[in-house]
Amino acid sequence: MSKTTITGTRSESVRLMNQSVVLRAVHLAGESSRSMLVPATGLTRGAVGTIVGDLVDLRLLEEERAGSDGSPGRPSTLVRPSPRAVVVAFDIRVETVAVGVFTLGGHRLAATRISRDHDRGPEHTVDEVATIARGLLELLPPDTVVHGVGAAVAGLVRQHDQLVVSGPNLGWRDVPIGALLRDRLGADVHVAVGNDGDLGALAETRRGAAVGLADVVYLSGEVGIGGGVIAGGRPLTGSAGCSGEVGHIPVNPDGLPCNCGSSGCWETEAGDHALLRRVGRSDEIGTAAIEAVVHDAEAGDAAVLAALDEHARWVAFGLAGVMNTFDPDLVVLGGTLARIHPYIAEAVDRELDRRVFDVIRAHARVVPSELGIDAMLTGAAEWAWESVLTEPPRAASGVAASTILRRSA
Amino acid sequence: MSKTTITGTRSESVRLMNQSVVLRAVHLAGESSRSMLVPATGLTRGAVGTIVGDLVDLRLLEEERAGSDGSPGRPSTLVRPSPRAVVVAFDIRVETVAVGVFTLGGHRLAATRISRDHDRGPEHTVDEVATIARGLLELLPPDTVVHGVGAAVAGLVRQHDQLVVSGPNLGWRDVPIGALLRDRLGADVHVAVGNDGDLGALAETRRGAAVGLADVVYLSGEVGIGGGVIAGGRPLTGSAGCSGEVGHIPVNPDGLPCNCGSSGCWETEAGDHALLRRVGRSDEIGTAAIEAVVHDAEAGDAAVLAALDEHARWVAFGLAGVMNTFDPDLVVLGGTLARIHPYIAEAVDRELDRRVFDVIRAHARVVPSELGIDAMLTGAAEWAWESVLTEPPRAASGVAASTILRRSA
Repeated sequence: MSKTTITGTRSESVRLMNQSVVLRAVHLAGESSRSMLVPATGLTRGAVGTIVGDLVDLRLLEEERAGSDGSPGRPSTLVRPSPRAVVVAFDIRVETVAVGVFTLGGHRLAATRISRDHDRGPEHTVDEVATIARGLLELLPPDTVVHGVGAAVAGLVRQHDQLVVSGPNLGWRDVPIGALLRDRLGADVHVAVGNDGDLGALAETRRGAAVGLADVVYLSGEVGIGGGVIAGGRPLTGSAGCSGEVGHIPVNPDGLPCNCGSSGCWETEAGDHALLRRVGRSDEIGTAAIEAVVHDAEAGDAAVLAALDEHARWVAFGLAGVMNTFDPDLVVLGGTLARIHPYIAEAVDRELDRRVFDVIRAHARVVPSELGIDAMLTGAAEWAWESVLTEPPRAASGVAASTILRRSA
Repeated sequence: MSKTTITGTRSESVRLMNQSVVLRAVHLAGESSRSMLVPATGLTRGAVGTIVGDLVDLRLLEEERAGSDGSPGRPSTLVRPSPRAVVVAFDIRVETVAVGVFTLGGHRLAATRISRDHDRGPEHTVDEVATIARGLLELLPPDTVVHGVGAAVAGLVRQHDQLVVSGPNLGWRDVPIGALLRDRLGADVHVAVGNDGDLGALAETRRGAAVGLADVVYLSGEVGIGGGVIAGGRPLTGSAGCSGEVGHIPVNPDGLPCNCGSSGCWETEAGDHALLRRVGRSDEIGTAAIEAVVHDAEAGDAAVLAALDEHARWVAFGLAGVMNTFDPDLVVLGGTLARIHPYIAEAVDRELDRRVFDVIRAHARVVPSELGIDAMLTGAAEWAWESVLTEPPRAASGVAASTILRRSA
C-alpha cells in the first residue's frame, strides 16, 4: 500500500538536494559551463562551484577551464559527465533482447541486440544478456565504474521486490528478474527494473520526442500494447509500480480473449495480432510480418490500406480514452504503432477530433517515437541512473567494471 | 504546454519549505503537540519551535501550554489551527450548489446546499452562491480572515485561467468561473477552481475513505461519471489541468451518443441515464429517480436487481481499464455509484477479478465514499488552502471577512 509522506528539510540535507539538482542538470544537458548552471538550477555561483567540486570528487563530473571566447571577464569552467561513470542497460522483450553501456549524460558507449529464444525460460535469457554485458564491459577502459544496472521488461514489474509478476507475451510469471541479474553479474551492484512502456516513456522525455515535457504518454507496440506515462514531470508508478497498462483497458464488450485473461482489451483490437488479422495474415506474427504489411501499404495495396484504416479507428478508440484520462502534452507512438504511423495518422487524427475533449485535443499531439527500437534500452539506462541522480554520494558504492569481469569469470 | 523543471534549494528557502511542511502536518492531523511534530516532520525540536512561532505570527496556528500528563519532563506545547483562519468553498454541480466555510484543519463551520436553477446561466448561479457565502460569513466572529476561495465545478477547468471550458452536463461552455466569483465577492481574494472529480479525490485522501493513501481514484456519479486521481501522493493534473475524465473513455464501439460529442463513452453505459434506461425509467433523471431505483432494489424487485446486475458489469468494464491504468491502492465511489454500491458490489467484484491484473487486484479495494455528497465541497476547501499550505507567508494577504461583507454589500 502506497502512503503519502510529508517531510521537512534539515539544513544539512540541502547540500545533498543541490548535488542532485546539479548532477541531474548536467546529466540532461550534457557539457555545460558553470555560468549556464547558475540560471538552470537557480543556485548561486558560489553554490554551483561547491557542488560541482563535490561531484568531481565523486568522479561523476569532470571540469575543464574553457579557453576565452573573446568576451570580457573570466572564462567560465566547463563541466561534463565523466566518461568513466557508466550503467549497464538491458531490454528484454518478446522477440529480442538488447544490452547497452551508457555513460552519465546518456551517451551510449556500446550496445548489442540479439533474437530471444522463445523456447527457453527466463534463466536462459538472463544468462545470455549477462554474457553480452561482460563482453561489452571488456571493451571499456579498466578504470570504468558501473554505477547501476537497469532492465526494461515486457511485463508487469512489482517494484518493491523487482519481480516480473506477469509478462503475458513473454510467457513469464513471477520471475525475480532483479535477483537473477544481480546473481548472474556476480556483483553487488544496484539493479533497477521497470516495465518496458514505463521506461520507454522515461526515455522519450529525457532523450527523445518529448524532451522536457511534463505530461507524456508513450505507447509501445510490439506484440501487445504497452504504455508508460509521465505525469507532472514524474513517472506514474501506481501502488505496486504496475500502472500504465493501458493496453488492457477494455474497449470491446464483444471482443476476443486477451493474453492477460480478460477479453476485449485495447491490445486485442490495436495490437499486432489484430493488425495481422485485418490484413489476412492471422497465422503470422513478428517483425517480418509487420514489415510485409508496411511493404504492401507502400505499394498501395487497396485491401491493406483499408485494413489499416479500420485498424486506425481502433487505435484512436482506445487512445481517445487515454488522452481524456491524462490530458497529455504529447503522445509518443513506439514499435509497430510508429512503423505504421504514416498509414494510420490521418484516420487516427479524424477519430481523435471527434472523441477527445477540445481543450485537450488543442495541445496534445500524436507523434512517432524518436528513439525507435532503442527507446526501452535508453530508458533502462536512465532508470539505472536514478539512484545516483537522486543521491549522488551513492556513487561511492559503484563497482569497478574489472571487478564484475573477475567475479563472473 | 507543461514543462519539467528542476530547481535547486537556496538555504534561505529552507525555512519557507519547512513552514509549509509543519503547517500541512497540523492542517492534516489537527491539534498536535510539538513533540508529535518532530517525528511527523523529520525536523529537530528546535526547528519545529521556530517554525511554529512563524506560523503563530502569521495567525495560522495557536499554541497552548499543555497540562502535565504525569509523565516526567516538561509538558509539550499544544499546537492547533486557528479557528479564525478560514476559506470559503463552493460546489457547483448539475442538480445542486453548495457553499461552506472551513477552518484550517478542515473543520466545517457552516454550510448550505440548495437546488440549482437549470434554466438560468452561470452568472445567476454565481450570484446565488455569492449571496449564500455572505450569509455564512455574517455568522462568523468579525476578526475571521478569509485566506482563499475554492470552487468545485462539474466540468473541465483549464487551470491557467480558471475557465470552465466544458461542462457538458451543466450546459456550460467557456465560463470564466474564477473571475466571476472574485467579482461577485468583491474582494481581492485568492480563488482556486477545480474539476469536481479532481476535488472529490483530494477530499477523500485528506478527510475521507483514502486518508494518507498515495494512489487513489475517485469516481463521482451524478449525471455523468467524473473522475479524479491522486498519483504518487499528488493530484494528477495534466497539461491544462483537464486530466481524469475517465467517464469519457470509449468502451462501446456500438454505444450511444455522449454529451461530450463522442459516443460509447463509459458514462453512457455506467452513468445515471444508463441506469434509469435499464430499469425502464428512461424519461426520468435526478436524485429522486435514483432513490426510486434504490427503493425498488431494497424491496427486492427482481427486474430492477437484474438491471443493476447488468449495470454493474458496465461499471466494472470501465473500472477495470481505470485500475489497469493507475494501479491504485483504493477506488472510491461517489454519488450514484456509492448509493447503488450495495446492489452492484458483488457483480463488480466478480468482473474486476477477471479483468484486472492479479498484482493490482490483490491490493486495490473498491469502497463507497465516506464524505458522500460533501466530498466536492470539502475538496474545494482543501484546494483553496493549497496556496497558503505551500507558501504560508501568503497568509498575510488574507482578507478580513468584514471587508468582503462591506465591499459586496
